[in-house]
Parts: sequence; structure tokens; C-alpha cells
Amino acid sequence: MDEPGFTRLARCRVAIVGLGLMGGSLALALRAAKAGREIWGVDSDPAALAFALEQSIIDCAADFDSVLNCEFLILAAPVRAILAQLERFSRLMHHGSPITLLDLGSTKSQIAAAMEKLPPDFDPVGGHPMCGKEVSGIENAEANLFRDKTFVLTPTKRASSAALALAQELIAAIGARLLILSPERHDALAAMSSHLPYVMAAALMRAAQTVDDDQLWTLAASGFRDTSRLAASDLTMMVDILLTNRAAILDALGCYRTELDSFITLIDAADPDALRVALAPAQAKRGQLFQ
Amino acid sequence: MDEPGFTRLARCRVAIVGLGLMGGSLALALRAAKAGREIWGVDSDPAALAFALEQSIIDCAADFDSVLNCEFLILAAPVRAILAQLERFSRLMHHGSPITLLDLGSTKSQIAAAMEKLPPDFDPVGGHPMCGKEVSGIENAEANLFRDKTFVLTPTKRASSAALALAQELIAAIGARLLILSPERHDALAAMSSHLPYVMAAALMRAAQTVDDDQLWTLAASGFRDTSRLAASDLTMMVDILLTNRAAILDALGCYRTELDSFITLIDAADPDALRVALAPAQAKRGQLFQ
Repeated sequence: MDEPGFTRLARCRVAIVGLGLMGGSLALALRAAKAGREIWGVDSDPAALAFALEQSIIDCAADFDSVLNCEFLILAAPVRAILAQLERFSRLMHHGSPITLLDLGSTKSQIAAAMEKLPPDFDPVGGHPMCGKEVSGIENAEANLFRDKTFVLTPTKRASSAALALAQELIAAIGARLLILSPERHDALAAMSSHLPYVMAAALMRAAQTVDDDQLWTLAASGFRDTSRLAASDLTMMVDILLTNRAAILDALGCYRTELDSFITLIDAADPDALRVALAPAQAKRGQLFQ
Repeated sequence: MDEPGFTRLARCRVAIVGLGLMGGSLALALRAAKAGREIWGVDSDPAALAFALEQSIIDCAADFDSVLNCEFLILAAPVRAILAQLERFSRLMHHGSPITLLDLGSTKSQIAAAMEKLPPDFDPVGGHPMCGKEVSGIENAEANLFRDKTFVLTPTKRASSAALALAQELIAAIGARLLILSPERHDALAAMSSHLPYVMAAALMRAAQTVDDDQLWTLAASGFRDTSRLAASDLTMMVDILLTNRAAILDALGCYRTELDSFITLIDAADPDALRVALAPAQAKRGQLFQ
């Protein structure tokens, strides 16, 4: 059955470079939406490629250089791998027909700068789907991962309206919600809303591991489970995020540390009213955000 | 149908002082287990009492002084309210027949000290069910709240074996898992596993609220939601915890802050290998803990 809304995307040959949780889920979501004439997959891990073929997540396993034969190229690796791929593309003299390039990297400023150096045949748009799991790998991929989730686009200055339109078609096809931001604004907001919570979770796990009492883990209930969840995130992805969004993350950490130190002072002072005054806005906002 | 395992508990008149999430859920769980000959409820809030009666969560609404007519008295208020109740009991000369007293307070050392001052007719045991929700109040109570959750008992030196046995019957009846700890050990472990994560969540919310960009909340996805969840906890309960477990919480905060500062230094140094080495044990332990 034709879905008239996604005609251009339906006709594209799509290549997804990086078949992890994100790339695999995107392939499944595009399949479910009957978007993409063909879906090619590229991954340095033969097991991921084999899994993707066996499960019919992709139509064809490709090597990195052949993806330039696709009309829509999606980079779904960790950020520093995307930067290396863009660097490789930037050294190409001419590759042939024009390619819309979308990346799904978790930080956008360094990728946006690298995109500016691509040859003119590339039509690049930065993207970041605001979803994830604490598990990684294509075996955890799911077609509904993006549904009703925010999908940020950070268009480069050189991106054509056609490239933007194709990226928006993809976002609509997988059921996500478009939000357009500058790369810098994305990175500052992601530092506070996502990268800081990751560092907090890792520091909590490390602090808990200093306790020499195994009953700690028996006592760790749903509060500990949720607060520490992000510590289980994929290390390669997270190290790349910490390195490529360093300044914004250090700003967010500094701001958080100020608030933490205020609480340490307040708890030390043991004044119930002052504690209540400090805690109440956090409680009110959290209650309002997620009901 | 008789449940032969809970004969003594089945014959008890049980009074629950404090009909919030914990007290209300305990009443529902006891009912579901056909435990307690009668369940009396006490609360300073007439609306909570009326709700408990209307929903048949309790058999009878009682006032505070009449609970001494019950054989099994359970204190389910925030910690400082429990301390005030114990202080009131400690001034009684003689109340009549012996009473097994169990409290569900979130911190145990100060309550254990207060229990030592009770008149001899009280047979007190400290308790803490390791479960909760970020919502409070009897309207959120549920019979299964304690099922498969750890329920800590912190027996006082004066507790009789009969009091311990009755508390254990209750834990079995509501489907929880018994763990016996000293009050001090409980408080140190709860500071790290529960109270520190709460302060972290509140500080995260406060840090996020300093960001002057409403798109922050659009970007705040499941990672932020989970890491900030505890900030929505009941303020009276949490302020009481911070005040009555102050030293252990400050210790846990100090330990956490050291780990946080290490991460700030590592991110600032931008060394991928060093970051990976620091993050890996946190990831491994978190992955092993909750699968």
C-alpha cells in the first residue's frame, strides 16, 4: 500500500552506517513504515551485519566505500566514529551523484563543523533522536524506539531545503517529533538533560562500590535502580560524548556541583524549614514534568 | 480459608498509625493476606481516615490514645512524627496489656534510641520496608507494594523473641523478604542507596531549573526522567530522613562528591582511555545488579 506522505523517502536507497541500537532500530522503523526502496547496512562488526541480514533488518550488507551509491546516507555510529567518517568523506575529490547525509550522533557542534568541510556533492544535516536504552547493540533494536520521541535536527548552513525535507520525511515516517535547534544549543541542553545525569549515575555507582558491605545491594531498591540506570550505558558512545561535548558538560557539572554543595551545607545545618524551601521547587517541577 | 502460617498475626488487633502510602499499603496487604483480626487506623488528616473507611482499607478509625487497646501497633508516619509518638508513649506510666510495637520509619538509629526509653509493657522492633513510590498518600496505596521487596528489621536489645516472631509473620504475610540489620548499619546503607540518590535527584532538578531555555524540558528524555525521579518524593518524609540520618548522609555525599570531582578532572583532561577505565567498573556493576 502506498503511503503518499513519504514518496521521496520511499524511492531512496538508504544506507545506514553503524548497526547498533540506533542504526538497527532506524532500519526496523523504516521497514515498518515501508520507507526506503532498499536499506543497506554497514558495520565493522561482521556479527552485527550477519544478525541484520538474518533478521531481514537490512536488504544488503555493504562496505563503507559503496555507500556513496545510495541517495540517503545515515551515520549511526558513536560521535568520534562519525567524525572519522566525515573526515574520510572530506578527502574525496568527487563521488558522483548527490547524497543527502544525516547523522544520528549524540553531540552536534563538532559534527556540524566537520560537515562544513565535506565536498559539495554532500548535502548534510545533523540529527539526534532523543531516545535510548541502557542496553546497546542491534540485538536490542526495536522499530518503535523513536515513536513519540523528540528528534532534533541541527541543519548546517549549507544544507539544502531538499535535504531538510528528506530528513523530516524520515522523522515523520518513524513516528518521532521534529525539533530544530542550532548545534550549540542542542549540545548545551543535552549536557544538562542527558550527559550530566550519566556522569551522576556513574559517580553514584563508584561511590556505592566503595562501601564494604554486600548488603548494600540488597537494600538498593527502585530509587537506586533508577538513579544509577544510565551508568550501564555503552562506554564507547559515552566516552565520545564526554570528549566531544566537554565544555558544555563541564558547565553543567559545575552548575550541578553548586546545587549539591548547597544541599550539603543545608543538611549540615539541620534546619528543616530551609531544607524544605530548597527542596520544594525541585519537587514541584519534577511532579509537573512527568506525571 | 485458614492460612496456618499466620495464626498469631491472624488473631491480633492491629493498629496502624499514619495512613499514607506505607500505612495504607500495609493495611491493604494485611487484608489481602487475611492477617489481623481487626485493622484500626489513626491519622491526623480526617480526609485520609475517611478515604480508608470508605474503601474498607481499615475496619475502624481510632484516635491516638485508643491504639493502646491493640495487641500489635504499627507506626507508619514520617520519622520525626514517629519520634514524637515514641516520646509520648515513653511518658505513660502504665497502659495495661503488652503491646508489640513495630515502626516503618525510613531511618532507624534515632528511633532505636527512643524505643529504649519506652515503658516495659512495650515490646518494640524497628522495621523498614525497602519500597516506595515517588507519589505519596493513601490514594496511591497498593496491596502489592511490599511483594518481593526487602523488609529490614532492626531489633532493639529489649525486643522479645515473640515480638520478632510477630514482625516476621507480618513480613511473610505481605510477601516481603526479611533482612535483619543493626540500626546503624541500616542507616549507613540507606544513606548510600536511597538518601544520597534523593539529594542527587533534587540537585539535578535545581541545576536544570537554572537553564533559561524551555526546550530543555523537550529534550529531557528517559535518562533525565529516571535520574530525577526521586526529587518528586514526599517532602515531609524526606526532610525527616535528612535530619535524622544526617551524619551518614553527609558521609555518603562526601564519598559521592569525591567520585564526581574525579570525573570532572577526567573530563577536563579529555583522555579517552582514562575515562574508560574510570567508567568501566560502574558500568559492569550496574549491568550485573539489575538485569
